[in-house]
Amino acid sequence: MGATGIVGQQFVRLLDEHPYFEVVGLTASDRSAGKMYSSTEWVVGGQIPDMAKGLLVEETRLETILRHDVDLVFSALPGGIAYDIEAALARAGLPVFSNASAHRMDRDVPILCPEVNSQHIDLIQTQDYGEGFIVTNSNCSVSGVVLALSPLMSYDVRDVFVTTYQAVSGAGRHGVASLDILSNVIPYIAKEEEKIENESRKMLGQLGDGMIQPAEFDVCASCARVPTINGHLESVVVRLGRPITAQDAEEIMRQFTSVPQRLHLPTAPERPLIVLSGSDRPQPRRDLSTGPGDTGMSVKVGRVREKCNGELIAFFLLVHNTIRGAAGAAILNAEFAKARGVIP
Amino acid sequence: MGATGIVGQQFVRLLDEHPYFEVVGLTASDRSAGKMYSSTEWVVGGQIPDMAKGLLVEETRLETILRHDVDLVFSALPGGIAYDIEAALARAGLPVFSNASAHRMDRDVPILCPEVNSQHIDLIQTQDYGEGFIVTNSNCSVSGVVLALSPLMSYDVRDVFVTTYQAVSGAGRHGVASLDILSNVIPYIAKEEEKIENESRKMLGQLGDGMIQPAEFDVCASCARVPTINGHLESVVVRLGRPITAQDAEEIMRQFTSVPQRLHLPTAPERPLIVLSGSDRPQPRRDLSTGPGDTGMSVKVGRVREKCNGELIAFFLLVHNTIRGAAGAAILNAEFAKARGVIP
Amino acid sequence: MGATGIVGQQFVRLLDEHPYFEVVGLTASDRSAGKMYSSTEWVVGGQIPDMAKGLLVEETRLETILRHDVDLVFSALPGGIAYDIEAALARAGLPVFSNASAHRMDRDVPILCPEVNSQHIDLIQTQDYGEGFIVTNSNCSVSGVVLALSPLMSYDVRDVFVTTYQAVSGAGRHGVASLDILSNVIPYIAKEEEKIENESRKMLGQLGDGMIQPAEFDVCASCARVPTINGHLESVVVRLGRPITAQDAEEIMRQFTSVPQRLHLPTAPERPLIVLSGSDRPQPRRDLSTGPGDTGMSVKVGRVREKCNGELIAFFLLVHNTIRGAAGAAILNAEFAKARGVIP
Amino acid sequence: MGATGIVGQQFVRLLDEHPYFEVVGLTASDRSAGKMYSSTEWVVGGQIPDMAKGLLVEETRLETILRHDVDLVFSALPGGIAYDIEAALARAGLPVFSNASAHRMDRDVPILCPEVNSQHIDLIQTQDYGEGFIVTNSNCSVSGVVLALSPLMSYDVRDVFVTTYQAVSGAGRHGVASLDILSNVIPYIAKEEEKIENESRKMLGQLGDGMIQPAEFDVCASCARVPTINGHLESVVVRLGRPITAQDAEEIMRQFTSVPQRLHLPTAPERPLIVLSGSDRPQPRRDLSTGPGDTGMSVKVGRVREKCNGELIAFFLLVHNTIRGAAGAAILNAEFAKARGVIP
Repeated sequence: MGATGIVGQQFVRLLDEHPYFEVVGLTASDRSAGKMYSSTEWVVGGQIPDMAKGLLVEETRLETILRHDVDLVFSALPGGIAYDIEAALARAGLPVFSNASAHRMDRDVPILCPEVNSQHIDLIQTQDYGEGFIVTNSNCSVSGVVLALSPLMSYDVRDVFVTTYQAVSGAGRHGVASLDILSNVIPYIAKEEEKIENESRKMLGQLGDGMIQPAEFDVCASCARVPTINGHLESVVVRLGRPITAQDAEEIMRQFTSVPQRLHLPTAPERPLIVLSGSDRPQPRRDLSTGPGDTGMSVKVGRVREKCNGELIAFFLLVHNTIRGAAGAAILNAEFAKARGVIP
Repeated sequence: MGATGIVGQQFVRLLDEHPYFEVVGLTASDRSAGKMYSSTEWVVGGQIPDMAKGLLVEETRLETILRHDVDLVFSALPGGIAYDIEAALARAGLPVFSNASAHRMDRDVPILCPEVNSQHIDLIQTQDYGEGFIVTNSNCSVSGVVLALSPLMSYDVRDVFVTTYQAVSGAGRHGVASLDILSNVIPYIAKEEEKIENESRKMLGQLGDGMIQPAEFDVCASCARVPTINGHLESVVVRLGRPITAQDAEEIMRQFTSVPQRLHLPTAPERPLIVLSGSDRPQPRRDLSTGPGDTGMSVKVGRVREKCNGELIAFFLLVHNTIRGAAGAAILNAEFAKARGVIP
Repeated sequence: MGATGIVGQQFVRLLDEHPYFEVVGLTASDRSAGKMYSSTEWVVGGQIPDMAKGLLVEETRLETILRHDVDLVFSALPGGIAYDIEAALARAGLPVFSNASAHRMDRDVPILCPEVNSQHIDLIQTQDYGEGFIVTNSNCSVSGVVLALSPLMSYDVRDVFVTTYQAVSGAGRHGVASLDILSNVIPYIAKEEEKIENESRKMLGQLGDGMIQPAEFDVCASCARVPTINGHLESVVVRLGRPITAQDAEEIMRQFTSVPQRLHLPTAPERPLIVLSGSDRPQPRRDLSTGPGDTGMSVKVGRVREKCNGELIAFFLLVHNTIRGAAGAAILNAEFAKARGVIP
Repeated sequence: MGATGIVGQQFVRLLDEHPYFEVVGLTASDRSAGKMYSSTEWVVGGQIPDMAKGLLVEETRLETILRHDVDLVFSALPGGIAYDIEAALARAGLPVFSNASAHRMDRDVPILCPEVNSQHIDLIQTQDYGEGFIVTNSNCSVSGVVLALSPLMSYDVRDVFVTTYQAVSGAGRHGVASLDILSNVIPYIAKEEEKIENESRKMLGQLGDGMIQPAEFDVCASCARVPTINGHLESVVVRLGRPITAQDAEEIMRQFTSVPQRLHLPTAPERPLIVLSGSDRPQPRRDLSTGPGDTGMSVKVGRVREKCNGELIAFFLLVHNTIRGAAGAAILNAEFAKARGVIP
């Protein structure tokens, strides 16, 4: 669902020749519906995959989707319209893996990142959608934050300060007018700071008694749009109850692997965090990929510094907002659900 | 001194028809020395002032300057070469108002911003340069931070987190190659974070017994270069011992005036801080000046928010890096020194 | 009409304290109608003029406008909806000075630029709108071309090759998505090449027997959008039947003045063409204005070169697309009409 | 030679695992000499090839190079210093394939592009360097022009108008300061217009009696730098003695193949010209490569239009300035020389 937008295009690109999943239907708003997918203005690099070219874009409606007899649904819908249709699909018995913000803060819906909180998938058992369920992935900026914080959690994270430099692709195809952003910075992105503050605490919280207890640290986010194309750069400062050196923090992040790596999930990167050694990295235009094998699922970290005798650890991170921060995250969630037997 | 660079040009522009000071000599490196100032590649807007066009650029050397029989010297020299020549000039009996970083952290040299720490000017009495002395202004990013913090100091500032979005003009005429910054962000500026951390604590510290006791709060800075031309945008988060609401913080900053305003110094802005009401301001390209009367000496503040019940106050600020952050700051310092009778 | 868009805002800005005209009503699409003009997102620099702040934006409809009992109407409407309403207003007895493309190629409508073809104003006598009439100004790119060609016409212009570097503001407030133009060039602007080819020949043609005989030279235009904010840069090559040197061509353009200068029309620049001497000028970001007195009505010319023994004259020009290329042009036309007694 | 600059890096990248040539030595200016190549700040994408990492960068001097007992030399030197060393190397018996402009206009040196003027390689027989010789490739902008003109030559090309939108990488690592080009266009590139005018006529000229008779058409070039990273976009208008339709011109370019394709040279693209069908293409950021198999050696063409009944054919082209316009061109020349038996 939402297959013609930037995130939708990333879904199509990443699902091309996927070992588990096959695309059988594509939906979009009524503006695009009725056209062949081959007529989509393709903006995510390379060419439209052959498997998608011949598919007819259908309108995003319950009946349309049910007619296809699919096993699961990926949603790249805008927050506004996602709520009802995603719930309806789950109620109709379908697993929904959604990038939309609509259900993320629902009590019974996990915001899943299998490297970070794989056990949160069990929260779907509390959903009353019958056979179906909804699993979300986080906001694009949050995906970088939680991956970087995850290996530091055992050092007693107390405060987190996040300041972002976000690319224009995060706002969608026509989301940022060039007149606003050329040689400029816009220090505001609607609802982004709240999402970072709420979603990261939920994701790093504990699941118990069928509910999630958010992590207890405070998060303070400040978000800005900058004139870059892809990749959200974020400055992160963490206060730790158990101080460590910058060198240790760097090593901990470098060594970090988790469930998706152990399960060898197809979309899982070899290393969730890649620590760059250059003194002025990571840079959005240069570091989204470190080479042919790097598909944009690794978060790049650089300039790890300690302050106040290691009480504060500061660093910059770079996350590919439409891959690890969106389509790639949802696909990894579905792969994990399959590995766990939650979907067949 | 250093009259042909960006900051030097701002000095020339701001000193044109200045009520107190008259430019009688201009110096630069030997690359520019020997040419008429009219041949300078002018990059700070408008035209080269007539008073400067006919001046010969001389080499930055002690004898050259002493030959002019000047009353004071403004320095826009690069940090590396400023140390010796500025000390020599002071030793030769001249007041030196310097934008260079060289002497800023000297025990007996104030980093002056008359709205913030006017009493620090007394520190020059501890200098042993004889008749002469050195007064510095802060690093460009720091100038915004200390002005915004100044009215909040009485609420017991405990921690300050600064994250910057700095314009390319801050690196000088050829400081940032276009190949590096187009559609990119570079999360590193040499020595900038240390300057923010050290200078702001010194400036907001207390002068007593002929020395400055730095302010006790911690500052954690993260600096990045963005593809903007003028104006450093900064995200600031302050932890206060005496919590206040965002509305109060905003009002306190809006009402803030200080010594230069009371003295009606020529370069002093009517309001040191201008709080913008737009939900996505301040923006570097749009808000450096709010109108004809705004010469770039006011710091723009926006998006004042409270977090954790007012324990944290977060906001964005924008400072014109080559005016309030450099040439304008030094000129204001000299005006204040004159008003205080330190210079005739 | 169309008062909230970029060109509409330039109209409001330029009509503030205008010696001839007073703004009594402002219209826009139904999206903006019903709000106070003070709520307009102002993007043309400075502040919204006080005279406009308190005006209510009304819907662009015939009755609305007639209710105001105005003496004339300025139109900044999009081409699509301008045709009918402009004709209806003229039919209702009103002079319409329009920046819209809708009526430009009408047989009986002049595309007026008083420096270039002031006599074309007589074409309105052939209109059968009764008391009312329509006068248009040219497309923004054309305004630069015809002003630069005008003084060269006596050297037998035979071919004109125009290649453009057009700013994003030319496409309107949200006309160019940042995702498309950051670090990119888009070599296509809808209908722009045809406008340059047709309008410039009409404007430089001869009025006789109540109709305009287009100029006989060929025009070949190639248009591209570049990531600049304001100001269309254009590379122009002209083949002349009577060859001249680059130096002569430069001097002819520098000396060029015309009817609006002799009439001292309020919006007329002292020099329609300003020839810049720098070897790499004009540049959009630096040369839109040469100083406080330069309101953006002068076209900047640079790098005048001769090729093939002076048969070809090549140069670059820069025109402020929303001032000389739009609102300023329409206002100058109205001033000229008043000076000629066509409007009271 | 010149291995650490952008073009030098492209040489290294493209020669990695090359079937004919093996890199045994790398030279650069004395600033880089003495360091391992692995310490080069790599800016051309991907990683430094392993074969180059371990090589020591040596100073660009005759003895240094002769010591290596190489079979041929590739030169990515700046024009200024290339003249003497290239001549000396040729005199010492070495074939020199040079991207430098120094010798291009020498009477006895071909500017070779094997798709366009493969027979010009015979011009080296007139050189009196003994066993050695110099073969140059054209300026980066010219490489696009001559490839696009080549298949049109049989339609009697009479005039060529070229207007460029050139990327900052064309000026070298630090060639364009960000302060100059952000949201700006600079309508001047030193010597570029002369190169386009002279080199394209030489390349498309006839070799006879041991000398090249330049093509007889006139070329008029206008060059500008725009804020793009890689890829020179060029607007080209050609006057033909034998008019054709835009459709025919497009087809002729699409079908064009030549000697390197027939010889299956390793670096030769399948199609020298790729005609893009999108109405707003080619775009520098999106069209430098059309897919994994497109290494940047194909010139992209779009928006082919006819004017004046086909007497004028206009189009836009995009050439990768550091690949087809530099390193790739020189390597293709060497491959062709090998195929022709000129080098062993």
